[in-house]
Amino acid sequence: MLYVVGLGLGDERDITLRGLEAVKKCDHVYLEAYTSLLALGLGPSATTTLEKLYGRPVLVADREMVEQGAEAILEEARNSDVAFLVVGDPFGATTHSDLLVRAKKLGVAVEVVHNASIMNAVGACGLQLYRFGEAISIPFFTETWRPASFYDKIKANHTIGLHTLCLLDIRVKEQSMEALCRGKKEYEPPKYMSINTALGQLLEIEETRQEKVYNEDTLCVGLARLGTSSQKIVAGSMKELLDIDFGPPLHSLVIVGDTHIMEEEFLTFFRAS
Amino acid sequence: MLYVVGLGLGDERDITLRGLEAVKKCDHVYLEAYTSLLALGLGPSATTTLEKLYGRPVLVADREMVEQGAEAILEEARNSDVAFLVVGDPFGATTHSDLLVRAKKLGVAVEVVHNASIMNAVGACGLQLYRFGEAISIPFFTETWRPASFYDKIKANHTIGLHTLCLLDIRVKEQSMEALCRGKKEYEPPKYMSINTALGQLLEIEETRQEKVYNEDTLCVGLARLGTSSQKIVAGSMKELLDIDFGPPLHSLVIVGDTHIMEEEFLTFFRAS
Repeated sequence: MLYVVGLGLGDERDITLRGLEAVKKCDHVYLEAYTSLLALGLGPSATTTLEKLYGRPVLVADREMVEQGAEAILEEARNSDVAFLVVGDPFGATTHSDLLVRAKKLGVAVEVVHNASIMNAVGACGLQLYRFGEAISIPFFTETWRPASFYDKIKANHTIGLHTLCLLDIRVKEQSMEALCRGKKEYEPPKYMSINTALGQLLEIEETRQEKVYNEDTLCVGLARLGTSSQKIVAGSMKELLDIDFGPPLHSLVIVGDTHIMEEEFLTFFRAS
Repeated sequence: MLYVVGLGLGDERDITLRGLEAVKKCDHVYLEAYTSLLALGLGPSATTTLEKLYGRPVLVADREMVEQGAEAILEEARNSDVAFLVVGDPFGATTHSDLLVRAKKLGVAVEVVHNASIMNAVGACGLQLYRFGEAISIPFFTETWRPASFYDKIKANHTIGLHTLCLLDIRVKEQSMEALCRGKKEYEPPKYMSINTALGQLLEIEETRQEKVYNEDTLCVGLARLGTSSQKIVAGSMKELLDIDFGPPLHSLVIVGDTHIMEEEFLTFFRAS
């Protein structure tokens, strides 16, 4: 049996009793998104903390391993109990969906243990969840790569008055140009996009496209470390949020659409000014 | 302190360790959405099961009590630790948002413990969460009240290719016409909308409006008891799903928008035919 267990958003205590029970009986425990855990409530000793709680060794499985070593994990799961731990909910990322599809194809039994993810916990800012449109991902711009496909999605949501959740880039295990040239397996330190960087990139794209989807005065909500004890939520115009220090990762951003009275009332508790 | 604790979707084991820790130290524990718990993994002895796990008496608080007795609960929370338990995530329903707004106004400290809710667990059907548009609620039609405002929202999502999650009506503590006439406080048994009823109503509205937003051949996904051990997910046309027995509540429905290859591949595992 393959148990795909959501860990939620904060630290080791955000696993559910159902999830913990499953993990405790597993022969092998893989932890995906180790870097997200580090960035959230758990520090550099994340695996030690988890191992203590689970009474099991925890093996860190990065994206590369999940994508390339999936067959091996699934073979193990055919004959024993294997846990695959993910930050948030198991259906938060396409990587996990891919693993589930492969499991189903191979006829490996799967049990999913759900948990909170940014996709529903974003409701903490007071905007009603059902009024969100398509969520977008904002990647780090480089000198030569400044993609703007997310602009059209924000525009589509905007035309029907919906909020847009922006998931901000996380770069882990990126090879430096130097390492690539030398053919070395050396990685840059993990890099997490801040709300400020995301806003800068968004405004740059509006400047280029000029389709008046949003501007410096557009109401947004910045959410940092959502679901942890140090979470920080601030509502304000893009201009206002540009200058706010949201602290350590992970950051997310909402571009606010049409609002109802209760949403407005709730948002006032988080206003920058 | 007011702890608003999400219980997730299944049974008592879906609470998080963080949530359980909070509940165990509370002087008063209120349980909202008792009927949802009954309908999901917990039977008629739901409160007993929870009391045993928490080591605390659990008081059932229906919507009426939450809306009218909120001040009393918040006053208690000013001077002691109070837990308010909700099915799913605390931000899944406007009632809870309202309680939080009131708490903030009164200056009562609040801590939210997130959990899975239908809004993110719906990803279990293989459709990517970020590609959902505005979620809608479908109420039970009566002889004289057949509202169709949700039709325009499905249409808006449809125009930009997004999936629509339909939350189906739950009627609890409804007074019968007879009881109302007699001025008695007698309630009808709880009533949960089935996927079949929802589809019937949806097709009736399309028949009336004729704006070609969907038809009998439109691909949908029915989800029953999501997140429980008896969950049932079936993908098929509206016509196909109309004849499927999804079993006991709670039911939800997705009207599928434009799909990506991976979504299609995942959906095949749930196809009706």
